[in-house]
Amino acid sequence: MRQCLRLADRMLGRTSPNPAVGCVIVRAGRTVGSGATAPGGRPHAEALALTQAGSAARGATVFVSFEPCAHFGQTPPCARALIEARVRRVVIGCIDPDPRVRGKGVAMLRRAGIEVTVGVLEEPCLKLNEGFITRVRLGRPFTTLKLALSLDGRIAAQSGDSRWISSEQSRKLVHRWRARCDAVMVGAGTVAADNPELTCRLIRGHDPARVVIDGALRSPPSARLFHHRSPAPTLLVTSRANCAAAKRRYGGPGVEVIGVPARGREIALDVLMRLLADRGWTRVMIEGGARLAGSALRAGIVDEIAFFLAPLLLGSGRPAVEGLGVVRVSKALGLEGMTLDRVGRDLMIRARVARLKGKDLAAR
Amino acid sequence: MRQCLRLADRMLGRTSPNPAVGCVIVRAGRTVGSGATAPGGRPHAEALALTQAGSAARGATVFVSFEPCAHFGQTPPCARALIEARVRRVVIGCIDPDPRVRGKGVAMLRRAGIEVTVGVLEEPCLKLNEGFITRVRLGRPFTTLKLALSLDGRIAAQSGDSRWISSEQSRKLVHRWRARCDAVMVGAGTVAADNPELTCRLIRGHDPARVVIDGALRSPPSARLFHHRSPAPTLLVTSRANCAAAKRRYGGPGVEVIGVPARGREIALDVLMRLLADRGWTRVMIEGGARLAGSALRAGIVDEIAFFLAPLLLGSGRPAVEGLGVVRVSKALGLEGMTLDRVGRDLMIRARVARLKGKDLAAR
Repeated sequence: MRQCLRLADRMLGRTSPNPAVGCVIVRAGRTVGSGATAPGGRPHAEALALTQAGSAARGATVFVSFEPCAHFGQTPPCARALIEARVRRVVIGCIDPDPRVRGKGVAMLRRAGIEVTVGVLEEPCLKLNEGFITRVRLGRPFTTLKLALSLDGRIAAQSGDSRWISSEQSRKLVHRWRARCDAVMVGAGTVAADNPELTCRLIRGHDPARVVIDGALRSPPSARLFHHRSPAPTLLVTSRANCAAAKRRYGGPGVEVIGVPARGREIALDVLMRLLADRGWTRVMIEGGARLAGSALRAGIVDEIAFFLAPLLLGSGRPAVEGLGVVRVSKALGLEGMTLDRVGRDLMIRARVARLKGKDLAAR
Repeated sequence: MRQCLRLADRMLGRTSPNPAVGCVIVRAGRTVGSGATAPGGRPHAEALALTQAGSAARGATVFVSFEPCAHFGQTPPCARALIEARVRRVVIGCIDPDPRVRGKGVAMLRRAGIEVTVGVLEEPCLKLNEGFITRVRLGRPFTTLKLALSLDGRIAAQSGDSRWISSEQSRKLVHRWRARCDAVMVGAGTVAADNPELTCRLIRGHDPARVVIDGALRSPPSARLFHHRSPAPTLLVTSRANCAAAKRRYGGPGVEVIGVPARGREIALDVLMRLLADRGWTRVMIEGGARLAGSALRAGIVDEIAFFLAPLLLGSGRPAVEGLGVVRVSKALGLEGMTLDRVGRDLMIRARVARLKGKDLAAR
């Protein structure tokens, strides 16, 4: 199962809208086939592993990190393929929460007399596909808010300069994360201040799409994001009212403009996230700035924070998060399951954002 | 030596201007005497241990965490007392950097034919008395900047409310630290916003003096700090120009007003720190707010930061440090030797502030 996870992990970020799955087929103690979901989500891992195993699959044990599908989608169901290959036993990491599957794959296998074990390394199997699962459950991508800040919580010095707060090792890790996302997202202020590329340069890996939130069209049209050579597009998201003007100003090859309803002076990020999920996207990383961080947290669309704390003090400049508007400490946004790691000279803190009920968010 | 450190540790914060020292006398494998510097700094640890040992000190081995003194101060030199007691061997944690001693104690013992070993558990012995050592070397107390902040670097929510960002365990630890300090220091804004007592309540321990930095006399005269029942005084520090007005407004039992030169709109904290060292104080903890934190860091008087990071986001309200005025990230104030601990649900980060040359500070 660990090998399944490793196989799946390498494909993360390239299988949307499908989960990243790894499959290993073992017969008489020997691996006779293995595979991972292919880029674009097809073929599935089981199909690739079965093809590789050929007739050796007969009587074999199949390890697969995610429940095999049971429905006819763009490929025939994997559960049926496993039955037809006459495997003896299937060991499954976790159940697929997609209502089209959810236990049906297991049931189909068992009906065919195959021995099925479920829940081996369940937690890492679920964690690996938290993007897919969040999209199925909440209708939006799993979203990480990643920021690099000084120990006193600033993401830029007084001049707006932010290069570099975090260490090279941290920046490399972020590039690795980008390759595992469908999209990275920034606010217009960050585009104006930093002119970032948001591609995957420090390591080898596929570029995610870049999404710029820009309700008031404050991004400089000359910004790198709008003149890139990446295979992945840049999306400029603005209000519906500004959509036509945005197309004139930023439109070009590899750039797409999307109009989303505004709430007050802000883009309705919950609506946007549903649109991104409709594209099949399952993993989004927000990379700043402070305003977008505040809006996203307020909109309740952030699942996880990943803060790189650098061992330095700025004592002026941009605070990490702005406009969250917490009036009293007792109403603060809680974080759960905080984990710590040292990355280069930095401290990396990851935590889940406490899920809030609608009224708590409104009262905030 | 570990026992010496334990004995000394208990007295920390009450021995100024003297170091906190522990002494254990062992003869034939049995402890025949032990002692720690008494409150107020006298008698010294060695004198107490020798008294307890009596004639059993003869031929014994003496463990002492800090070099025995060699000069006639308000007590006769401990090195001479050890010689007169005819001990056989003295094991010393670290040399006293005070120019009146610095190796003279060791030399005096060796001249008398006593075997002397120096540097056993040297680092913790030096660390324990970093207050005393900083006062001797730099003419000011060792200063810790302690702040409780949200993970996004805020010390108060939008309303100014800050109760409680850190967990009860963290607050208890801070009270323990208070007992180990000569003084705790806050700015007038904190007095106005929080009306703190700054005493040692959550644990048993002696109260430190409270120092309020208030150049413009913004503290409410009704604040608890000015009407306390603590044995330790409250010092109100203002500009020389405001000194008389401050005495009228805040003067009372247990309150002392000090005038210190102002630089621009700020109290000259380096001058103040020298005045506090002149009182014999060796350990000061700054407890906020953001402005005082910025001024103190800018003045180069902060040796160490201790940040309690709570697992929550405020996204508005007071940033942890203000007015440090770092223009570019490359000019940020560096932190060294960062250590991490979990205290309750909080993360405690401690680090040394990088010592800067005068021109670096000016250029900042």
